[in-house]
Amino acid sequence: MKRSFGARTVAFPLPVFLVGTYDTNNKPDAMVVAWGGICSSDPPCIAVSVRPSRQTYKNLMAKKAFTVSIPSVDQMSRADACGIASGADTDKFVRTGFTPVRAEKVDAPYIGECPVGLECRVSQIVEIGSHTQFIGEILDVKIDEKVFDEEGKPVLSKIRPLAFDLIRSEYAAPGIVVGKAFCAGKKHLS
Amino acid sequence: MKRSFGARTVAFPLPVFLVGTYDTNNKPDAMVVAWGGICSSDPPCIAVSVRPSRQTYKNLMAKKAFTVSIPSVDQMSRADACGIASGADTDKFVRTGFTPVRAEKVDAPYIGECPVGLECRVSQIVEIGSHTQFIGEILDVKIDEKVFDEEGKPVLSKIRPLAFDLIRSEYAAPGIVVGKAFCAGKKHLS
Repeated sequence: MKRSFGARTVAFPLPVFLVGTYDTNNKPDAMVVAWGGICSSDPPCIAVSVRPSRQTYKNLMAKKAFTVSIPSVDQMSRADACGIASGADTDKFVRTGFTPVRAEKVDAPYIGECPVGLECRVSQIVEIGSHTQFIGEILDVKIDEKVFDEEGKPVLSKIRPLAFDLIRSEYAAPGIVVGKAFCAGKKHLS
Repeated sequence: MKRSFGARTVAFPLPVFLVGTYDTNNKPDAMVVAWGGICSSDPPCIAVSVRPSRQTYKNLMAKKAFTVSIPSVDQMSRADACGIASGADTDKFVRTGFTPVRAEKVDAPYIGECPVGLECRVSQIVEIGSHTQFIGEILDVKIDEKVFDEEGKPVLSKIRPLAFDLIRSEYAAPGIVVGKAFCAGKKHLS
């Protein structure tokens, strides 16, 4: 039996993306974004939605470039700090000890400590109510050497990304592997 | 030290959304979508990206309505089956035993067995390379009675959603809570 929960932003899992930008003076900023996700395979694109009141919005409009750093469980409290403070009046890098690293392909900084960083060029801007969606073409992905396995593939259990639970305002960690994709379902089809 | 991993669709966690639609004969279909996420708070909107070759694309264009059902770990293999087979030649509901339930607010079916179902009306269509992004206004969310706590809030550990690891083609389950959002970071700001 289902209960109506109303017209609300419910989805699981929500990501914890740290969106990195420079302002027009090249001061780095990082903002937590849970409204986003991959939106195209070719070219590879990722979408992040930002309110116009945010410093990140101004930076995105000026530079048309951003990064997405994916924090691990180890960086949970520092990532959360980037979601509480505003880059307009707080230097989040000073406060958290995160290191801004200039991206190679775009004019934006990623967070050196995070295991994964995407370098993105804004390709489309879509107005959607309270938020503006910035679609970024992913020009490169930088991944920490230490999260790769011997076959050259990143390992989820080493990256240990966070998932955001909006309803309870909590972070969770995707844990155990529960099945093989494009495989586990074959028993229903044969 | 970071390694360049190239221009690829990397992000963690990726969702496992079952997008439900009817075709013009009201035959239900469900497709697995990992390219998507919430994209606006007001009105509440969710974006899902679909290739034009998919049956779901035809259905979305015809009906301008869809649901997003969020499968739990228990439904992993049946969800995976919906990602392997095509609705053009397979009745995924018959094969998986999933039950199509007509949504209340839109002309689309959600999956009765999944703990969470969003009812969405297509409000914008954005062309992005290989994929077309359908932005849906969330008109209602239906949630199983059994995943609520005593305060009337859904509990992540009862919903047990899946996360998709594209690189390894695996499903993982967000496990333990690791911190309180908008709280854990305060120690870096005071």
